Amino acid sequence: MRPVEVGIIGFGTVGAGAFEVLTRNREIVRSRVGSEIIVKRIADLDVDSDRGIPVDRALLTTEAMDVIEDPEVDVVVELIGGLDKAREYILAAMDRGKHVVTANKALLAECGKEIYEKAERCGVSLGFEASVGGGIPIIRCMREGLAANRIHNIMGILNGTSNYILTRMTEKGLPYDQVVEEAVRLGFAEDPPTLDVDGTDAAHKLAILISIALGIPVSLKEIYREGIDSLTPEDVLFAGEFGYSVKLIAIARNHGDRLEARVHPAMIPRDHILANVNEVFNAIYVDGDYVGPNLYYGLGAGRKPTGSAVVSDIMGVARQIRSGGKTAMPPLAHFQALKDRVTIQPMNELTSCYYFRFSALDRPGVLSQIAGVLGAHDISIYSVIQKGREIDGSVPVVMLTHEARESNVQKALAQMEDLNVLTGRTVMIRVEHE
Amino acid sequence: MRPVEVGIIGFGTVGAGAFEVLTRNREIVRSRVGSEIIVKRIADLDVDSDRGIPVDRALLTTEAMDVIEDPEVDVVVELIGGLDKAREYILAAMDRGKHVVTANKALLAECGKEIYEKAERCGVSLGFEASVGGGIPIIRCMREGLAANRIHNIMGILNGTSNYILTRMTEKGLPYDQVVEEAVRLGFAEDPPTLDVDGTDAAHKLAILISIALGIPVSLKEIYREGIDSLTPEDVLFAGEFGYSVKLIAIARNHGDRLEARVHPAMIPRDHILANVNEVFNAIYVDGDYVGPNLYYGLGAGRKPTGSAVVSDIMGVARQIRSGGKTAMPPLAHFQALKDRVTIQPMNELTSCYYFRFSALDRPGVLSQIAGVLGAHDISIYSVIQKGREIDGSVPVVMLTHEARESNVQKALAQMEDLNVLTGRTVMIRVEHE
Repeated sequence: MRPVEVGIIGFGTVGAGAFEVLTRNREIVRSRVGSEIIVKRIADLDVDSDRGIPVDRALLTTEAMDVIEDPEVDVVVELIGGLDKAREYILAAMDRGKHVVTANKALLAECGKEIYEKAERCGVSLGFEASVGGGIPIIRCMREGLAANRIHNIMGILNGTSNYILTRMTEKGLPYDQVVEEAVRLGFAEDPPTLDVDGTDAAHKLAILISIALGIPVSLKEIYREGIDSLTPEDVLFAGEFGYSVKLIAIARNHGDRLEARVHPAMIPRDHILANVNEVFNAIYVDGDYVGPNLYYGLGAGRKPTGSAVVSDIMGVARQIRSGGKTAMPPLAHFQALKDRVTIQPMNELTSCYYFRFSALDRPGVLSQIAGVLGAHDISIYSVIQKGREIDGSVPVVMLTHEARESNVQKALAQMEDLNVLTGRTVMIRVEHE
Repeated sequence: MRPVEVGIIGFGTVGAGAFEVLTRNREIVRSRVGSEIIVKRIADLDVDSDRGIPVDRALLTTEAMDVIEDPEVDVVVELIGGLDKAREYILAAMDRGKHVVTANKALLAECGKEIYEKAERCGVSLGFEASVGGGIPIIRCMREGLAANRIHNIMGILNGTSNYILTRMTEKGLPYDQVVEEAVRLGFAEDPPTLDVDGTDAAHKLAILISIALGIPVSLKEIYREGIDSLTPEDVLFAGEFGYSVKLIAIARNHGDRLEARVHPAMIPRDHILANVNEVFNAIYVDGDYVGPNLYYGLGAGRKPTGSAVVSDIMGVARQIRSGGKTAMPPLAHFQALKDRVTIQPMNELTSCYYFRFSALDRPGVLSQIAGVLGAHDISIYSVIQKGREIDGSVPVVMLTHEARESNVQKALAQMEDLNVLTGRTVMIRVEHE
């Protein structure tokens, strides 16, 4: 059996991780694929730095096109990240009949349609296991393992940095800024960690998961995003008193004619398996009509887990080449999409339960005024905590609501601003039960 | 594209579930496979009972060979369970070049070698996603998603019935017999649930997972088994006081030259993600050298989840047929095994931490006598709870040990029987930290 030859573009953390897996686990890879997988070329602007693993210098080039145009390369692995160059290289590789493996979630969430269609037109495989959930084989599970199901619901903890921050805020009662500083120092967060904490990274990944579930590319801009940077330790603590954990959750809920697609901090009941996903771990909770609730859990980032995912894709392509057949799996795992288009439900039509923390003057009648405004907007209170603890000169009034409509909540909160018994911004966190 | 035609042997719970998925989600299956999947024949001794879903009577036959010998059937789905007949049908189907899908864990754990080799010789696919973890796509994850990894460690909650029983014992403090009675009444357990509670079912599944991890068939009889039927609510409660949950765990730990393979009740730290798997749910925790710790969670049994798994296998075969290639994946996902043979570590060479509950007379010097015997066998105590609570006329002395050797523990426990300060059987539960 002739070996399968691989070219890597981008020799940073993930590229070096994939190369390390292919080198150190060469024997395992060969025994499981049935033929050798050989790295033929590696392109990177930096061909000098030590990547912590021996590399034959002759493999290295600064020209991505050296990889793409190498006639012996079967699989091009794009690991440079970013949009324009990555897109260009991927399309150029497909044009030359190369199979493509990528970890580039931003690119797929923003230009996925063009790339998916190109792969199908060129009859090549597109692997992107590493784009969502790091080492967790969630793409493969969605494309194959759960293939017989209509997916009703996806809830994911898709960003390890923000999950680390929230875990530390919960365990230590520390404020956001202090935890971010610590996370940057420990290498768990970039400085500043903007795309991680503002929900963009999780939304990229959610866009990809929805696209596979429905067979239709969904783009980032259709997904509602809210970050974790305004969360306070007080709210995390109150959530705990109500029996919930606060997580940055990416949610897609399929209502048949329309789809909820949103990323925001949410309170999850503590006995839900997702609430027990802590530190830098990721998890994806998927509910299908036959399989029921499933959870996939693991490390969502890092050289080794992401390297594992990239190599699993390369091995999949290699097995397929070895079988001699044509590409068995379109990128989104659908030969026809399940719908013509995806209609995303506008955020103000969402129905959810809510947590509110009001900062109020400590005087009689405050709760009745708040309840009055809520009641006028059809929002009914499920549970209240009112304690003497003063925060910044006012007293917190904390409550959970029954299901209410987002538009009503927004109107009620706007109207609250006129209540002179409230002394500050009202905190709102959505509560997810399933 | 010509449709892919399927024959089902065994139209019980799982068979009807698979048929229901193929019927009700026909449009989803077609859009994801790119061609129709049609059930051509169904064999069962009972062709009259209502399965809760409309079936064309012309599909039904009482003769399994009608399915196997139908020249139009591409995939034979064996769902009768049991050993002899199932084996015969599967081998006969492979002889005729049919791909095979089965949910039969007992058969694979007992006669796997013959069946795996036959599939390879005949060049057909063998799918058995439904044999482990019900709807959880753990077989696919092991064969493909984690393919680049050396698997160090597998820890599974693989039997939903026993997990349900332990969950109820934990939550309600109820005795084993009472919970079993309830589980039988609610349909969560068979009457009697012998193979579920004695560890055999979990050991079947563990044998299959180990076989895939190493590429070598491992058989049931090599796996140590201990059931949950002697657990008491007292021990579950004490475990909780030490910060642990009691679970029936299937463990495979790869030491390179030898392998631990065992199924028994174990105490798991409450903050471990596995400790939060409750009710009838299953979960498999897998640690690979690159991917790190992963967890797969879902419903481990039942018509719908198992139907989902069976149909995912059928869809995999259909996609492969459509691609026109030869079978891309050997049953155990290895073209060559990673080792010549698997050497299972004898149980008495295990090193573990232990929980003991001694039933002792309430008099001075008891703890020192117990500690003396333990010390003489190189077993050092980590933590002790000694309380006045009387159980059956004696006082419990409860402790956790540091790591000790199983053979020493067995010797110490035997020697304890001579201590006249002890009034009854000493309970021992192994403690697993990773």
